[in-house]
Amino acid sequence: MRELAADTRFLSINTATVRGQWDLPRAIDGVARAGIPGISPWRDQVQAMGIEAAARQIKQAGLTVTGLCRGGMFTSFDRAGLARALDDNRRAVDEAAALGAHCLVLVVGGLAPGSRDLAAARAIVHDGLGELLPYARAAQVPLAIEPLHPMYAADRACINTLAQANELCEALGSGLGVAVDVYHVWWDPALATEIDRAGRAGRLLAFHICDWLVPTKDLLLDRGMMGDGVIDLRGIRRMVEDAGYTGFCEVEIFSRDVWWKRPPEEVLATSIARYHSVC
Amino acid sequence: MRELAADTRFLSINTATVRGQWDLPRAIDGVARAGIPGISPWRDQVQAMGIEAAARQIKQAGLTVTGLCRGGMFTSFDRAGLARALDDNRRAVDEAAALGAHCLVLVVGGLAPGSRDLAAARAIVHDGLGELLPYARAAQVPLAIEPLHPMYAADRACINTLAQANELCEALGSGLGVAVDVYHVWWDPALATEIDRAGRAGRLLAFHICDWLVPTKDLLLDRGMMGDGVIDLRGIRRMVEDAGYTGFCEVEIFSRDVWWKRPPEEVLATSIARYHSVC
Repeated sequence: MRELAADTRFLSINTATVRGQWDLPRAIDGVARAGIPGISPWRDQVQAMGIEAAARQIKQAGLTVTGLCRGGMFTSFDRAGLARALDDNRRAVDEAAALGAHCLVLVVGGLAPGSRDLAAARAIVHDGLGELLPYARAAQVPLAIEPLHPMYAADRACINTLAQANELCEALGSGLGVAVDVYHVWWDPALATEIDRAGRAGRLLAFHICDWLVPTKDLLLDRGMMGDGVIDLRGIRRMVEDAGYTGFCEVEIFSRDVWWKRPPEEVLATSIARYHSVC
Repeated sequence: MRELAADTRFLSINTATVRGQWDLPRAIDGVARAGIPGISPWRDQVQAMGIEAAARQIKQAGLTVTGLCRGGMFTSFDRAGLARALDDNRRAVDEAAALGAHCLVLVVGGLAPGSRDLAAARAIVHDGLGELLPYARAAQVPLAIEPLHPMYAADRACINTLAQANELCEALGSGLGVAVDVYHVWWDPALATEIDRAGRAGRLLAFHICDWLVPTKDLLLDRGMMGDGVIDLRGIRRMVEDAGYTGFCEVEIFSRDVWWKRPPEEVLATSIARYHSVC
């Protein structure tokens, strides 16, 4: 297991962590000034800035793009409209390639509009991934399925466990992997087994960190800073590293009432300090 | 699959559904007046009324007690204090026996105070159940492990899937079963398999219904009335009945801002109507 107490080489900031305060140009600048080597931007921010300008500034700042958030949402349209979702995903692949992102993170979508059929939603995701993969392989952009916490099954992602994500990877073949976000998977009794399964197959593409607060006051926007909650962060990092992961630890905190209200420099400084002390 | 469109014989009301409005004496009376044959009370309400008075009024009203909520919480104390949790659970068994309840529902407890070790919490639950079982068997009170949604893993229950509950049942033997609450398990990709596994072993002790709202505004107190959310209620009922379940469908809705504010007679009438039309 890597020793991180005095090492920031593997730290990345997902720009969602400071999106309450900074647009992308300021986030790139702020992350670089803080001495953090990795960044993971969101597509809406990239598009607002312009893809070429974003790629240029990130390169000039010397930052590694640990992922682009996000593709997926295959079930957002009706089944006949899957073509539109695929178009959008191909654009996301292009953007990830232009940024040199390590992967395109996929939030696959929840139930289709008006549907209560989770099995059908999962089938749409399977088929959509299958159609997207050749394009992503050609662009050399790995697709990272991010299983989302079961509380998002209806409206964000019907892939809710690492086991499901691993099964999709095994069914669909190369070019596909998983993003392990501790917030989504920490509760899973099969966590160690499924991380190992992903790692042995070389499919651990990203590792996201934050914390689960008790109480959690909002299903989406009340994530905690590492160390402020109950997740065994070091235990899960040991699992992913034991499974062969050597990549970045990406801080992704949606926190409307706490961290999005603090000075962004303080958020980054706290992220660094906690990364060293509790992760 | 049973036809429920004009049949209330298998309907039960968990008193949590109207706890914002009614204490237990009024709930017993209200449920009986509504023509609902089953009731499932909470221990705090039973204790406030007195166990003998509660048993007497329920019997006089002709109601079936489909469950007593709740025992468990093995991890609420430190490990040395497990004896206190067991004492409390034995009292819960006594109360369930006095009420003639079909089962004692167990919410097993989340992380121990100050701990981030889910595996340790799960071990405490295993050991606690093992110690409680002989007492429950002697009292002829089946214990129903209720797997809770993963969003409660930290503070309420570290048993978060039916698979985990089934494993505990298989490890610990007779006298133990599961309570299937659609709210907690609807997202689970292994749901059909695990319901079948429980049913074949005769371990389906209770079936709870409500709905998952989109959006869900509170992790605990924003459950929906059947039909107002996205859960495939009929699909899940088919699973439990295909697995041999012939018991009650128990309506359990925690709804601080909606159903706890309506006239309780309206809540029961709506529960009956939705039970007939969407369950």
